[in-house]
This record gives sequence, C-alpha cells and structure tokens, in this order.
Amino acid sequence: MNEVRVIPIQGIPEIKTDDNLAEITFEVLQKNKVNIERNDIFVVTQKIVSKSEGMERDLSQFNFEELLQSESKKIIRKRGDLVIAKTNHGFICANAGIDKSNVKKNTALLLPEDPNKSANKFRKRFESLANVPIAVIISDTFGRAWRKGQVNFAIGSSGINPIDSYIGKLDSFDNELNATEIAVIDELASAAELVMKKTIDIPIAIIRGVDYEKSKLTANELIRDDNEDFFL
Amino acid sequence: MNEVRVIPIQGIPEIKTDDNLAEITFEVLQKNKVNIERNDIFVVTQKIVSKSEGMERDLSQFNFEELLQSESKKIIRKRGDLVIAKTNHGFICANAGIDKSNVKKNTALLLPEDPNKSANKFRKRFESLANVPIAVIISDTFGRAWRKGQVNFAIGSSGINPIDSYIGKLDSFDNELNATEIAVIDELASAAELVMKKTIDIPIAIIRGVDYEKSKLTANELIRDDNEDFFL
Repeated sequence: MNEVRVIPIQGIPEIKTDDNLAEITFEVLQKNKVNIERNDIFVVTQKIVSKSEGMERDLSQFNFEELLQSESKKIIRKRGDLVIAKTNHGFICANAGIDKSNVKKNTALLLPEDPNKSANKFRKRFESLANVPIAVIISDTFGRAWRKGQVNFAIGSSGINPIDSYIGKLDSFDNELNATEIAVIDELASAAELVMKKTIDIPIAIIRGVDYEKSKLTANELIRDDNEDFFL
Repeated sequence: MNEVRVIPIQGIPEIKTDDNLAEITFEVLQKNKVNIERNDIFVVTQKIVSKSEGMERDLSQFNFEELLQSESKKIIRKRGDLVIAKTNHGFICANAGIDKSNVKKNTALLLPEDPNKSANKFRKRFESLANVPIAVIISDTFGRAWRKGQVNFAIGSSGINPIDSYIGKLDSFDNELNATEIAVIDELASAAELVMKKTIDIPIAIIRGVDYEKSKLTANELIRDDNEDFFL
C-alpha cells in the first residue's frame, strides 16, 4: 500500500461563463511545472463548474424563492430560513445547493445541470491534452443528517467506479465481507477538501496514489431511491 | 497551501486485549524508519482500539440481540435484519456499530466505550515517546441517510478542533461566510480510509500537512442533539 497525496492546484484564475476548465487547468499545471500522472484523480469544486456553465443568477432579476422551487424536485424540511430540498438531480441538501458565497454580491450560483456530464467533459478534454487517463470528481459541501458540520461530497464523476465493493471478498480472518461497500468518491471529495480552503482560491485538487477501478458508472450510483430510504 | 499526505502504517501486528496501541505504533514506525513529524494526525480504526480494550464478545456466550440492546440508547429503524440504532455514545449507525468482520469466527466486536478517551490515551502516550505534539482520530465506517455506500467517520478525537469554522470570515469576494462549518475530523477519517483496505491490515494512517487548530474539544462536538435534528 503506497501513500496517497492530495495536491492543491494553485493559480486557477477567476472562472467566467464558457471558460474551458480542462484547458485552463492543463495550462496552469504546465506553467507551474506540476507533473501529471497516469490515473490522477481531479476533484473540481462545483463552484467553478457552475460558473463556467453560466449558472450565476443576478438576484435583482431572480427571486431566491423561485430559484429554490425551480432547482428542487421536492422540499423535504423547512424551518425558518433553513430549507432542506431534494434537487432535480436527487441530492438532499440545504437550499437545493444554491450558493451565495464565493460569488459576486447579490448573486446566487446554482448547481451544474448535469455534474456527471461536466465531469466527463473535463476528463475527455484533459485526457486529450495530457495524453494519460485520469478520473474526475465534481464536489460540493453538504450538511448531513444527525451530524453537525458539512463535508465535501461527490455530485458528479467520470472514469472511476463510485463504489469500492468488498462484497464476497474475505477479510484477514477469512470472514466474508457481506455488507461493505465504500462510497469512495465521497471519501475522495472529503480528502480534497483538506486542501480547498473557502477563503482562498483552491478550486481543484489532484489526488494521486489511489488504486481505483475504472468505470462508466457515475456519481448517480450513490443516490438512494426514496423507497429504499429509512429517513425521508 | 501545501500538499497533504496520507501514509499507511504497515506492519501493525494483530492486536490483543491490553496491548498498548501507542507503544506498538511507535515501535513499528521506529522499526520501519518512518519519521514522525510535529502535528501529524494519526487516524486509528475502531477495530484495533476495541480489541485492545477487550470489547470482543464470544457469540456462543452472548446473544447478538442482547448485545444490540445493551449497546443502544435507542433503536431508530428496523427492517428485517437491518437495525439502525443510536449508540450509547450518540452515533446513529447499523447494528449500534457492532461488527462481525475482521474478528475471529463467531465473535462480535463492540465499539470502544469512550472513543475520545481512547484517542486521548493514545495521544498522550505517543507524545511522551515521540516528543512531538500529534492529534488522534478514532474512525469507523458508517452508512448515511439518502446516500448509498459507507464512509469513514470520526467517532473519537484528541488534540484537534473537530470543526473548522469559517463563520464571520470573508470569502474571496468579501462575502461573509455565515454558514460554513466543516466537520474536518470526518473528512480526515475519510481521507485515511483511502489507504485502509478492509482485506489487508492497515489499521492506522498518518495524515501530514493539514494546518489544524489544536483544541480540547472532542468528536462529541459533531453529534447533533435529537431536538435539533430534522431526520429522527
């Protein structure tokens, strides 16, 4: 087992609509002489993906309540200012993932429409530039049931199996591991957050040294159906 | 911002009741010539903590249902074999955290009685041996509401502020970050899991390069009160 490295990418400029994130990232890495390795995992925060996809909304033109409705499949809980919604993608989070931090004043930033598609687009373009296979995770910080504080979750992915399954494998005592399925892309998103500080601009991290399974499955694999969930 | 390294500790032997984990870990690191740095964070899986604290129960002598009752403050949900319980510590997880993998056949392993105390004991002893300050997190993999797959959570900690609060700080657009509190010890536990494979014996990882706040607060800070929770 080798060590895993979480490498912050310094010097990503402020992102505007229609910027190509993969090209910008590749240029920044070239300029900073950061090497790119086979099977590097790029964790990209939702914020710059949404900005590049034109998801900023001027709150003098859009009403926050209406944005919340249009971004939500369902309002799950509401108390005072706090709204927990199921987004159109199926994520359960505060304010349907609409963010008012790290954007211009009086602006709201919506989640990407299809974060898996965003991840795939980044991966394909980056691979064609760097000429090595990579994986891409789009991340966002959400709260959780029962526990205080937010952690970074994977809302989109491409090129990596979202779940590391041990079902049917044997542990070191030859017991069959019949219930262990690790949501590895969520753990990777959390690991990336350790170098992504909110008050400075580190919107992308590279995670190196993880032995992951390649896959066409996306982060949607982690969304549990309503009828399978105990807590809805 | 520097990179973060997640270093697996190889060669920890099978742990028995009354083994001193801090001493064993220190010896293994010395033997393998792994250097120890100021403010290293040690993430230790619950499994070896429980074993060292004599929490194994022979299922020919103990009934699983009775163990479940005695380990639980409350049964939260039950469907067939699947029981979601609130443990005596306040964690919400399957089977009150009682584990039957990576233990001898027909044996169940209970969670440590006080994982914060376990973390503190490890930290104090290790610091006296290594002569540098460290932080310690005790981790376990739990499922989550709404999302498939398990991730590693912090169930105990010592020497690190469990929450990285941005409240009152300004983002890069001078917006006040009024809601961001990162559950950093949960993210560290997740990062450690990337090198802790279930089928091999990596029960401890070192995380290096994280700029954390020292604190006397424990992992209990992350447990949300029942009356503040929307999803109980």
